Amino acid sequence: MAEIDRAAVLAVNQAFYTAFETADLDAMSEVWEHSDRVVCTHPGWSTLRGWGAVSASWYALFGGQARLQFILTRAQVDVRGPVAVVTLDENLIGEGSGAGSTVAALNLFVEAADGWRMIAHHGSPVADRPG
Amino acid sequence: MAEIDRAAVLAVNQAFYTAFETADLDAMSEVWEHSDRVVCTHPGWSTLRGWGAVSASWYALFGGQARLQFILTRAQVDVRGPVAVVTLDENLIGEGSGAGSTVAALNLFVEAADGWRMIAHHGSPVADRPG
Repeated sequence: MAEIDRAAVLAVNQAFYTAFETADLDAMSEVWEHSDRVVCTHPGWSTLRGWGAVSASWYALFGGQARLQFILTRAQVDVRGPVAVVTLDENLIGEGSGAGSTVAALNLFVEAADGWRMIAHHGSPVADRPG
Repeated sequence: MAEIDRAAVLAVNQAFYTAFETADLDAMSEVWEHSDRVVCTHPGWSTLRGWGAVSASWYALFGGQARLQFILTRAQVDVRGPVAVVTLDENLIGEGSGAGSTVAALNLFVEAADGWRMIAHHGSPVADRPG
């Protein structure tokens, strides 16, 4: 059961990054719980609260020219009953310059009747890439 | 019940910031779950995992000269059964210069037999203070 949950959480976590990379608002919308309680902190941003504000931020980000690509490393999943915490590094592949940057992310999911949904995403820039 | 949980979560959340401000390692230790699953992301840092690494970071931070003081604003508590998510802004009071900075924080707590324990802290610098 624990392994099934871990796999299900990782699948939704991957769906989040696929939606992010492909700038697919519908897919991003499916990942999230649609409630006033969700929170999203983009790197350098204030915390956005509620699906209205969070979805608006994805709409704005996806409308920009920049397409982001991530190499995800150091993923850790901690399932505690109906709640799962995923932490990982988002290693952004730089466009042109070659030099990327790393964002430390915490993604929080809850299990609903029809699957896991994201209720929090918090990304923060890592000042010095380790290693 | 929900209000009791909210109050209990906010009390532990406050204990975290009091321990932080007073550089009290014992008090900080009491706030956290002591397990390999806890995670802590200080602003600009990579994510630290496990109580060993997390406690070492507090030991290092508390050994420094700087004492931090926070004004906490925009606190929101979301209790979901045995898990609680607190988001807030940590407004750091600058020493001397007067200009402070704001950290967007997400604090995650789980309910143990003897009370709520922190299992994740993620703080990220806000590029522009709102307002």
